[in-house]
Amino acid sequence: MSDSDMDYAMLWPVAERMADAARDVTLRYFRTENLKADSKRVDFDPVTIADREAERAMRDILADLRPDDAILGEEFEAQDGTTGLTWVLDPIDGTRGFISGTPTWGVLIAVGDDDGPKLGVIDQPYVGERFMGGGGRSAMTSPLGNKPLGVRTGRDLAEATLFTTFPEIGSTDERAAFERVATEVQLTRYGADCYAYALLAAGQIDLVIEAGLNAYDIQAPIAVIEAAGGIVTDWRGGPAHSGGRAIAAATPELHASAMALLA
Amino acid sequence: MSDSDMDYAMLWPVAERMADAARDVTLRYFRTENLKADSKRVDFDPVTIADREAERAMRDILADLRPDDAILGEEFEAQDGTTGLTWVLDPIDGTRGFISGTPTWGVLIAVGDDDGPKLGVIDQPYVGERFMGGGGRSAMTSPLGNKPLGVRTGRDLAEATLFTTFPEIGSTDERAAFERVATEVQLTRYGADCYAYALLAAGQIDLVIEAGLNAYDIQAPIAVIEAAGGIVTDWRGGPAHSGGRAIAAATPELHASAMALLA
Repeated sequence: MSDSDMDYAMLWPVAERMADAARDVTLRYFRTENLKADSKRVDFDPVTIADREAERAMRDILADLRPDDAILGEEFEAQDGTTGLTWVLDPIDGTRGFISGTPTWGVLIAVGDDDGPKLGVIDQPYVGERFMGGGGRSAMTSPLGNKPLGVRTGRDLAEATLFTTFPEIGSTDERAAFERVATEVQLTRYGADCYAYALLAAGQIDLVIEAGLNAYDIQAPIAVIEAAGGIVTDWRGGPAHSGGRAIAAATPELHASAMALLA
Repeated sequence: MSDSDMDYAMLWPVAERMADAARDVTLRYFRTENLKADSKRVDFDPVTIADREAERAMRDILADLRPDDAILGEEFEAQDGTTGLTWVLDPIDGTRGFISGTPTWGVLIAVGDDDGPKLGVIDQPYVGERFMGGGGRSAMTSPLGNKPLGVRTGRDLAEATLFTTFPEIGSTDERAAFERVATEVQLTRYGADCYAYALLAAGQIDLVIEAGLNAYDIQAPIAVIEAAGGIVTDWRGGPAHSGGRAIAAATPELHASAMALLA
C-alpha cells in the first residue's frame, strides 16, 4: 500500500485511543502489591492479566472502529481482515521490567501492510510518555511537554551508545556478534526493553541490537524510528518487521559499521 | 548520635528543599539536545555541568540552613562541621543512565553520623518520584500518588528478583561471587542505577548487589531501605556506609542466603 493510500488522519486517532485504553489497564496492575509474609503461590499473575486485558481493550476498539482490518497480537489468535492493513499489538513489551517495577516496558501498537509498519506508537504509561511515528508525524508527549522526535547524527561507532535488553543476548554466535560491536562503542547499556528504541528516536542513543524478537516486538519501533530519521533492519540489512534479529541505528554510517561487525 | 537526639522535624524540610533544588537543576540538563550533524567535540559536558550545579545548589541550602553540619559530596571538597552530622550528596547517581536518557538515575541525599545515615532521599526528577526514609518516615511521592514504602517478604532465593548496575560488576572474583547468586534467583536485571534500591524499598524487587561503591552512592539507599524494613550491609555483613561492596535485601533470610553464596 503506497503511503498516499494510507488514511493517516483516520488511523492516528484510533491508535491513540488504543494507547489510552492500554495505559489505563496496565497502570491498574503495574506495581500491584505483592503478597506479604506468605510465600504460597496463588493463581494470580498480574502481568499475564494486565497483558490480556490490555490487548482485549485494544481489540475492542478495533472491533468498533476498524472491524475489517487484520490483527496480530501477542495474547490472542491472529484475526484476518479485508483492507490490507494489519494492526500489530504488544500490550506489555518488557514483562521482566514490568514485574520488577522499572518504567522501561511499553505498550506497542503498529499498523501496516505486508511491506511493514506505516505507523507506530511506543507508550510508557507510568512515566506518561508516548512516542509516535508515521504519516508525517514524529513526536513525543510527556509530562514535561511535547517534542519532535529525531535521531542524532554525526557520531561514529567509537562515540556511540548501544542498548540491548539482555547481556545474554540470543545464541552463543549471536552473543559473540553483539560483543564485537559492544567492544567498539563508547557505552553499552542493558535492561532497557522497548524504551531503548524510543530513546534512539528521541536522539539520546545511537544503536539498539537485539535477537529473538517477535513481529509484535519490533513493528512499532520500526515505524517510530524510521519517522525519526533512523534505520531498522535485520542483521543483514533486510526487513526486520517479521522479527528475529534486529539492528536499529541513528545513521546509515553507524548502521553500516555495526552490521559489518555483526556479520 | 541516638535516634532521639536527631531533630528529624528540622532535617526533613532541609532534605526536601535540597531535593527540589537538585531536581530543578538536573532537569534543565537531562536530555539536552545533542549536537547535530557535527562530530566535532565542544567543551560542553551536560552531565558534568548538571552534577556540579546541582551539588552547588544543595550546598547553598546547607550553607543557609545548616552551616555547622559537615558535607561529603561527589563534586566538591569535603567540608568539616561541628554538630556531629554529615550530609552525604550525590547529585547524579547513574551518570551513564543520565547521558543515555533513561529515567533510572537519581539524586541521592543522606544525613547521618559516624555510625551511618539516619535519613535518606532517592529522587528521580524526570519521573517525578521521591523515595524517603528515616526518623519514622518511609514513603514515596509520585505523579500517580503518594504511598508508604515497605519491602516485600516471604520469598526465598529461588523466587527472588536481583538487580545490579553492570553485568561486568567489580573484579573477576567479585563478578564470580555475583554470578553464584544470579544463577540461584528467578530473575536478574541490569542497568538500574540507584533506582534499584528504590524498587527494593517499594517492595518490587528483593536483592541489589553491587561493588566498587563510594560512600555517597550507598548512604541514601541505606537509610531508605532500612526505614522500609530491609537490610543493607557489605558482603560480609558489616556496615556498608563507607562504600565498597554492598548487598541490599528485603528480608534477613534472603540476606543470609545471598551472603553465603557471595562468601
